[in-house]
Amino acid sequence: MYRDFDSNGLIPLWTIREGLMPAVPTPAAVPHIWHWSDLYPLAQRAGALVPVGRGGERRAIAMSNPGLSPMPYATATLWAAIQYLGPAEVAPPHRHSQNAFRFVLEGEGVWTVVDGDPVAMRRGDLLITAGWQFHGHHNPNDAPMAWLDGLDVPFCSHIDAQFFEFGSDDIGERTSPRESRSERLWGHPGLVPVSASENQPPYSPLAAFRWKDTDAALRAQLELEQEGYPGVVSPGHAAIRFSHPGTGADALPTIRTEMHRLAPGAAMVTAREAGSSVWQVFDGAGTVTLDGATRDLAHGDVIAVPSWCEHTFGATTELSLFRMSDQPIFERLHLNKRVVTL
Amino acid sequence: MYRDFDSNGLIPLWTIREGLMPAVPTPAAVPHIWHWSDLYPLAQRAGALVPVGRGGERRAIAMSNPGLSPMPYATATLWAAIQYLGPAEVAPPHRHSQNAFRFVLEGEGVWTVVDGDPVAMRRGDLLITAGWQFHGHHNPNDAPMAWLDGLDVPFCSHIDAQFFEFGSDDIGERTSPRESRSERLWGHPGLVPVSASENQPPYSPLAAFRWKDTDAALRAQLELEQEGYPGVVSPGHAAIRFSHPGTGADALPTIRTEMHRLAPGAAMVTAREAGSSVWQVFDGAGTVTLDGATRDLAHGDVIAVPSWCEHTFGATTELSLFRMSDQPIFERLHLNKRVVTL
Amino acid sequence: MYRDFDSNGLIPLWTIREGLMPAVPTPAAVPHIWHWSDLYPLAQRAGALVPVGRGGERRAIAMSNPGLSPMPYATATLWAAIQYLGPAEVAPPHRHSQNAFRFVLEGEGVWTVVDGDPVAMRRGDLLITAGWQFHGHHNPNDAPMAWLDGLDVPFCSHIDAQFFEFGSDDIGERTSPRESRSERLWGHPGLVPVSASENQPPYSPLAAFRWKDTDAALRAQLELEQEGYPGVVSPGHAAIRFSHPGTGADALPTIRTEMHRLAPGAAMVTAREAGSSVWQVFDGAGTVTLDGATRDLAHGDVIAVPSWCEHTFGATTELSLFRMSDQPIFERLHLNKRVVTL
Amino acid sequence: MYRDFDSNGLIPLWTIREGLMPAVPTPAAVPHIWHWSDLYPLAQRAGALVPVGRGGERRAIAMSNPGLSPMPYATATLWAAIQYLGPAEVAPPHRHSQNAFRFVLEGEGVWTVVDGDPVAMRRGDLLITAGWQFHGHHNPNDAPMAWLDGLDVPFCSHIDAQFFEFGSDDIGERTSPRESRSERLWGHPGLVPVSASENQPPYSPLAAFRWKDTDAALRAQLELEQEGYPGVVSPGHAAIRFSHPGTGADALPTIRTEMHRLAPGAAMVTAREAGSSVWQVFDGAGTVTLDGATRDLAHGDVIAVPSWCEHTFGATTELSLFRMSDQPIFERLHLNKRVVTL
Repeated sequence: MYRDFDSNGLIPLWTIREGLMPAVPTPAAVPHIWHWSDLYPLAQRAGALVPVGRGGERRAIAMSNPGLSPMPYATATLWAAIQYLGPAEVAPPHRHSQNAFRFVLEGEGVWTVVDGDPVAMRRGDLLITAGWQFHGHHNPNDAPMAWLDGLDVPFCSHIDAQFFEFGSDDIGERTSPRESRSERLWGHPGLVPVSASENQPPYSPLAAFRWKDTDAALRAQLELEQEGYPGVVSPGHAAIRFSHPGTGADALPTIRTEMHRLAPGAAMVTAREAGSSVWQVFDGAGTVTLDGATRDLAHGDVIAVPSWCEHTFGATTELSLFRMSDQPIFERLHLNKRVVTL
Repeated sequence: MYRDFDSNGLIPLWTIREGLMPAVPTPAAVPHIWHWSDLYPLAQRAGALVPVGRGGERRAIAMSNPGLSPMPYATATLWAAIQYLGPAEVAPPHRHSQNAFRFVLEGEGVWTVVDGDPVAMRRGDLLITAGWQFHGHHNPNDAPMAWLDGLDVPFCSHIDAQFFEFGSDDIGERTSPRESRSERLWGHPGLVPVSASENQPPYSPLAAFRWKDTDAALRAQLELEQEGYPGVVSPGHAAIRFSHPGTGADALPTIRTEMHRLAPGAAMVTAREAGSSVWQVFDGAGTVTLDGATRDLAHGDVIAVPSWCEHTFGATTELSLFRMSDQPIFERLHLNKRVVTL
Repeated sequence: MYRDFDSNGLIPLWTIREGLMPAVPTPAAVPHIWHWSDLYPLAQRAGALVPVGRGGERRAIAMSNPGLSPMPYATATLWAAIQYLGPAEVAPPHRHSQNAFRFVLEGEGVWTVVDGDPVAMRRGDLLITAGWQFHGHHNPNDAPMAWLDGLDVPFCSHIDAQFFEFGSDDIGERTSPRESRSERLWGHPGLVPVSASENQPPYSPLAAFRWKDTDAALRAQLELEQEGYPGVVSPGHAAIRFSHPGTGADALPTIRTEMHRLAPGAAMVTAREAGSSVWQVFDGAGTVTLDGATRDLAHGDVIAVPSWCEHTFGATTELSLFRMSDQPIFERLHLNKRVVTL
Repeated sequence: MYRDFDSNGLIPLWTIREGLMPAVPTPAAVPHIWHWSDLYPLAQRAGALVPVGRGGERRAIAMSNPGLSPMPYATATLWAAIQYLGPAEVAPPHRHSQNAFRFVLEGEGVWTVVDGDPVAMRRGDLLITAGWQFHGHHNPNDAPMAWLDGLDVPFCSHIDAQFFEFGSDDIGERTSPRESRSERLWGHPGLVPVSASENQPPYSPLAAFRWKDTDAALRAQLELEQEGYPGVVSPGHAAIRFSHPGTGADALPTIRTEMHRLAPGAAMVTAREAGSSVWQVFDGAGTVTLDGATRDLAHGDVIAVPSWCEHTFGATTELSLFRMSDQPIFERLHLNKRVVTL
């Protein structure tokens, strides 16, 4: 009978049920840390050896979770890569259904051109290039620049949702304004352009979230806590979510992006969550504890937290952390679940 | 039979149908302008003669539409008043189901305390005190200050939705910080506090929209137009809507608040809209045309535009206009309708 | 100064605050009962004396709340009327922004034609004619028929939201099918036509809710209670809300429509609610208590419950009650408030 | 350098870009048909040889797409299996985060007990057991029964969203009522229980969609088309979507379920769609064309349509088809895309 199952393309549930339907998620991805001190020199070497251009499209080096090897996936749903662009280089325009952002750990001087709008990239900024927006990058300066790319590439691959299109071979727009047009229209707190009130896109029309604002928002939460007022997530833990300024939804429909800050000596609550995330140390020193194992964190380190992995972060000095996660997928499909374990 | 109708509390439709169900709205309110040059001196006189305190609660003088007299209503749904607070005066805390805002034409120096949070009031600012938030005002300075109050008092009266409660007799909070706590938490473009992501209130948790931001947003739209990019509502006409930064909804559930700016020589499209609005000239000179009659406008003038009144504004110099309207009521109940007539 | 206020169209708040902003709603409308035993004979007399046709449009007799006299309003927001159509008579097609329904206390034999779709009217049915749908009625039978009309006429008048248009002078469609096309498309529990999944109207596309279904739903709730399962609102009190089958929203955007049933001897919880309602006794005997005064109810009696009026219903025999209310207005604008008082 | 990439868990994008980001989806799953004439006898043999009980949990045989072998997945996101339950057998209660339904091709006599509510399973019915609802099945009759199980098992596996819990070892509820309690509460078109208006679950509270209703809805659409009225999706093609009767959303948050019917000789439009689906022939004869290859269809055949596969169905006799798809995932995450190709 089992041979007949096999020859008819059939598999009995009773032999595989436990693996398919475990009591809690059993991700192939493992908790993992990539060190910036390894990543950045390798990106520099690639900058010297590998040209960037049509076809390969980007000088991006993906972090491959050891549990998912040989796939270039940081977690089951998230892509994280370091991208590097040298002086005078151009990454040619293209677009894809995959949602993307850039987070700038350090440096400045590259402009990402999103649907024709040049957006400056500077330290601490989050830049949005949502699904099906044309985007290319150009570096009109003398110094190279590297940053973190985050995408939903694994998710879109799993569900077969990938579309891709080349843009014109030239970047076209080579201006380098301090502010993008998206910021001039949308970068004012609570002010929605009347011309854009209807038919808003499913992603943030504000293409850049600037460090100056993010830093001020986090600092204010910790100060309010000191003054005895609400604002922080838990004692010593400030956090903001980057959102669509016209709807409050996540800046990207499939990826949540947040910035967290822990006061010196503070720690997050320890929790498990259905869904995965990738964190990057932006500033400061601290530790991460993943399923009971504690590791030190340094500037730029990238941490993969698989689904249902018990995790917490602790701060030695003030510690600022960028986070991307797939929570919008879980929430919009009502699959979200979180337990505080400590 | 008609006597029997009457004695049984009955009224036949066929005798009144045309009045009840007109082809288009036939508001009792008329198009009207109140001049700031009349309003402000009267408010000053009231400041000299009438104390402010418990019972009367506010030194506010309501604009009564001639068509609605003797009701103190600017339009069928909207209340507009000039409020005046002298040096060292306090308007005691209370709360009510009616939604309210203050718009500051000129001056500064008063703090409105919203649910315990002191919010500075300065020229060009919009301050939100939504339904059932406790609020009082205090003037710790040497100069008096006047501003425009907008509320949904007529609407709440029509539908019998009024609740009111006195707060403590003393204002309690007499500090005068430059920034309210609401701004420190919510005043960063696109950044939502993670602690407040769920269970957001139906009104803007950001209590103050500052002129600096509003002005920059309007200026950017006109500049983008000059550069050939989208952003304005129509040629020479910039506009923003004050919104809940966590949802994009109107800052108040029943009242839309907007700021408009016309480039010199520009005019809005001429339109009729189901629903009424009240405008105030913030800065500049121009005209308003209401059902075909054109009038000059000066600083601070308040204009009532009843439902379905054909209206347009034109700018002589650059002209900035504040607008409140009842569109959220119409839109949420699917009664909205608008036609461009010219 | 007060003279100058007056001559400038201004009214000081401090002289009127208490009336404008009462502690709780102070409706002009009063609790009131119209008896079917008075209504129906008067409708019959009108049937004999008054023709129905273009201009007057409908042989409808409005219940005028004594507190709102001489306005033909049952409550601050709701219109309730008895409409009567004799054999072979036609009420000509028209449409208006006001939302409307018909509830059939007794009888049958009239068809309401809604946007060209003939909808049979029979005992216990609720028929929807939403804002801006063309509708006329025709009676192809030998017997006259009377029913309850409910509309948001007062609400639309207060906010100046009335639009009206005559249709063709003839009803056009004179067929009398058992089922309307709307029922054939939408009258299947949980089944949404794929062709209509997008761009659904703001009102129920299902034009008729049949007594057979309503009765079965109420009976099931009481039986489930007997069996020990959830379903009823409170002990002995079953209730359903008539809804848009494609969204679950209220069948009309401004008017909630419900059917209630009390088991013999049961009573509703006593409550106050911001917003008003009108009830009609469909079947059975019982009492209503309005602000402490208890009255007996008979078949067809219509009860006006103003905003914040303390109210409860009690059943002598099994008692079925139709209810219309303005709760969608209150809920969509976040003005809803309810307290159980007993 | 590439060795260093490898030893640091890094993969350069430029070597893999084209595979990761194809121009259109390149699913591993292939278009495929499983024949009921193969499936059913194998299920019978399993019924004779394999017991059903705790651990294996269900006598379900999964269809494994040849392109996804050895995974038991019908498409990238969807699980489809034939389940078989013999006389007096019980499939013990459990619950899981995966959303599930049963569709009954033929036969009757099993009750699925959903959160304690026994739901009869009969020919043509769709039965919902959403994520985290306890469910077991029991067959109190003399005849065995088989049906189609549909779940989002592959999707939940990809994103690591699986939770599972055993229920009590005994089914507990062994009654066999004709109607479930969920149907008694929710199975009335457009009627929402007032007690359940708030805090509705994200899945349909109506656990059973009966063939009688589905058949009537489809028949009505084709009849309306004959009479010249709208209703069908395209000429000769009727379709309904199974929905949450309190919100209109898909009956399950991750899986769309629909029933289609083609008039004799009719065909669907030919289209490609981002996202996959699985169809089952319920009744009638016809053909399916998948990426240009046309195949005959017989009663019970199950068809896998991968993402972006060009597909159409044609009817020889009247043809009724059940369909499950992952469109809610694509739509809620704004990844949906569809083109009509012919």
